[in-house]
Amino acid sequence: MKLPKLVITDIDGVWTDGGMYYDQSGNEWKKFNTSDSAGVLFLRYLKIPVLIMTGENTAIVERRAAKLKIEYLEQGVKNKLQKAREYCEKLQIDLSEMAYIGDDINDIELLSNVGISACPSNAPVYVKSRAQIILEVAGGSGAFRAFVEHILHECKSFDQVLNMYLNQQDLNQ
Amino acid sequence: MKLPKLVITDIDGVWTDGGMYYDQSGNEWKKFNTSDSAGVLFLRYLKIPVLIMTGENTAIVERRAAKLKIEYLEQGVKNKLQKAREYCEKLQIDLSEMAYIGDDINDIELLSNVGISACPSNAPVYVKSRAQIILEVAGGSGAFRAFVEHILHECKSFDQVLNMYLNQQDLNQ
Amino acid sequence: MKLPKLVITDIDGVWTDGGMYYDQSGNEWKKFNTSDSAGVLFLRYLKIPVLIMTGENTAIVERRAAKLKIEYLEQGVKNKLQKAREYCEKLQIDLSEMAYIGDDINDIELLSNVGISACPSNAPVYVKSRAQIILEVAGGSGAFRAFVEHILHECKSFDQVLNMYLNQQDLNQ
Amino acid sequence: MKLPKLVITDIDGVWTDGGMYYDQSGNEWKKFNTSDSAGVLFLRYLKIPVLIMTGENTAIVERRAAKLKIEYLEQGVKNKLQKAREYCEKLQIDLSEMAYIGDDINDIELLSNVGISACPSNAPVYVKSRAQIILEVAGGSGAFRAFVEHILHECKSFDQVLNMYLNQQDLNQ
Repeated sequence: MKLPKLVITDIDGVWTDGGMYYDQSGNEWKKFNTSDSAGVLFLRYLKIPVLIMTGENTAIVERRAAKLKIEYLEQGVKNKLQKAREYCEKLQIDLSEMAYIGDDINDIELLSNVGISACPSNAPVYVKSRAQIILEVAGGSGAFRAFVEHILHECKSFDQVLNMYLNQQDLNQ
Repeated sequence: MKLPKLVITDIDGVWTDGGMYYDQSGNEWKKFNTSDSAGVLFLRYLKIPVLIMTGENTAIVERRAAKLKIEYLEQGVKNKLQKAREYCEKLQIDLSEMAYIGDDINDIELLSNVGISACPSNAPVYVKSRAQIILEVAGGSGAFRAFVEHILHECKSFDQVLNMYLNQQDLNQ
Repeated sequence: MKLPKLVITDIDGVWTDGGMYYDQSGNEWKKFNTSDSAGVLFLRYLKIPVLIMTGENTAIVERRAAKLKIEYLEQGVKNKLQKAREYCEKLQIDLSEMAYIGDDINDIELLSNVGISACPSNAPVYVKSRAQIILEVAGGSGAFRAFVEHILHECKSFDQVLNMYLNQQDLNQ
Repeated sequence: MKLPKLVITDIDGVWTDGGMYYDQSGNEWKKFNTSDSAGVLFLRYLKIPVLIMTGENTAIVERRAAKLKIEYLEQGVKNKLQKAREYCEKLQIDLSEMAYIGDDINDIELLSNVGISACPSNAPVYVKSRAQIILEVAGGSGAFRAFVEHILHECKSFDQVLNMYLNQQDLNQ
C-alpha cells in the first residue's frame, strides 16, 4: 500500500455512531469522538490533506472541521463519486491516490472507486462488501483514527509519525 | 410473506434506545439513528407508505418525520390498534396488509393484529412473545431499517431495491 | 416476599447510567429511559406509591417526576435513611414495608435497612453486597422497571398487573 | 505502592468516553459520570488534592471542577509534563509522588514520568504501554474512580476510607 494523497471521510456513521439528536426547538446535535483528532494530526505530519464529504448540511460539521483545521469540507453532496472526481481535477491527483471511509449506501460508489477504502465494523454487509478494509472499530468510537492508523501501519509510517509527535512534545519542554 | 401496503412504526424504543433527554429549562431531546433513513428510502422505492404512531407528542418527532418525508404521523395515540383500524378505513386496506414494529406494552395489541409484526432485540419477553419477528438489532441501533430489510429479504425484493438505488446514483453522475 | 407499601428509588445511576451532561452555558441534562415508565404504571395499578429520593437537586428530575405522576419527590437529600424514616412517620408504615433501589455509597445505609433492596448490575461490589437483589440490568437501561417486575414476579402479581393493563386497553377500543 | 501526594487527571477520554457534542449554535457538551464523584470524595478523606489537566479549554470542565470542589484546574495545557513540573515546584513534591491517568498521545510523556500511572481500558495500545496500570473500566464509565480505588486498595486504605464515609453518615442521622 502507498500513502494516499488525499483522505476523504464521511461523517454520520463514521465520526459519529449515526446518532442525530433533535430537540423541541429545531436545534440538532452530533456526538464526535476526540479520539479521531489524532487521525487528522497524524495525516498533517505527513502533509496529507483531509476532505470531509457528507450528504447532510449542518453548522455542526462546519464547526468540527474548523476546530480540527480540516483542509476541505463538502456538505450536502448528492453524488460522492462525482464530487471526488472534482477533487481529482482540483488537486491533480487520481481516484487511485485517494482513500475513503464511509458506512452506508450513498458511499458504495466512492468506496468502489478509490485506491484505499474502508468501513466501520457496524456498516451493513452490502456496504462492507465494497470496501477493502473492514475496521474493528464502530462508527463514533474512533473509526476515522483507526482507518488512518491502519494506512500508516500498512505503509510502515506509523512509528515515524508517532515519534515526530513525541519529539515535538520534547522540543516544547 | 407478501409486501405490506403500509408499514407502521413506534418511535421511542424503536427509532431510539428509549432515551429521553431532559434539561433544566423544559426542553427535551431524542437521539435518532441516520441508519434508519435507508429503511424509509427503500420503502419509498416500492411505493409503500410509512406511518409513525407514538403515544408521546413532541415537536421532535414531527421534525424527524418531516426530514425523512414520512407519509403519515400520529402522535399522542392512546390506543394504537384503534388508530390502525382508522387507517384501514382511510387507505382501504386490511390489518393483515400492515406491518408494525413496536417494543412495549402499549404495542402488544397492535403487534398481535397486523400481518407482519416485529420487536427490537431488547424488548421485554412478554412483548416479544406477541411478535412474529425478533430482530437482532436493539432499538436506536437501526431496528426500523433492520425490520424493513427483513421484509424485503423475505419478499425477495431487497436486491431489486438496492439496485434501483445504485442505478439512480449512476444516472446522477 | 410481600408487596411493599412504598417503593423508593434513587435517580442517578438507576434511572440514568450516571451520565451528567454539561454544556457551556450552565445548563445540564440527564438521559432517562422510557422503559422505566411501565414500572411506575405497574405500581399504580397496585396502588403502591413511588418516592424518588436523590442527593442532587435539579429541575430535570422535578419535570421527570411530574411527567410520570410520581407521588413523592425528595431532592437534595443528605441522609437517605433519615429521610425514609420521615416517610415511615408520614405514611404510618415500617422500613420493612419499603423497597429501595440505589447504586452508590450514599445508598448503602438505606439499602441495608429496608424490607426489599436492589442494585443495578453495574453498581460497585461494596454496594451490591448490601442489597438483596442484584438486577441483570444496568442503570439507565430500565433498572427501575426490572426492580418492579422482579418484585411483582416474586409476589405472583405480575400476570395480574399485565392483564389489568391489557384489559383496560380493550375497554378503550 | 505509597499514597500519592497529588492525583492528576485528564478529562476527555477519562472522565468522558471522548464524546464531544456539538449543536448548530456553537454550544458544546460533555457527558460526565456521577460515579467518578466518589473518587474525588475518597481522596478528600485522605487529604490528597486533585489536579484536572486538559488540553481543551471549556466552561464545561470549569463547572464540573467547581461542582466537585476539585482543588486545581489547568486547561489549555500544551505540555502536560511541563505543567506537572510547575506543580512539583508549587506544592514542593516530586513527580514520583504524583499519580496520573490519561488516555491519549498527549498523555504519554506525563504517564511515563509520574510515580503511579494508569489508562482506561480503551486507550490505544501505544499509550497503554507507557502506563503501569491498565484499568478494566473504559473512559466515561467511572475510570477515574476505578483509578482511585485501585490506588487505595494497593495502599490498604480502601476499607478505612469507606468506613470514614459510612461513619460520617451515621453521625448525621
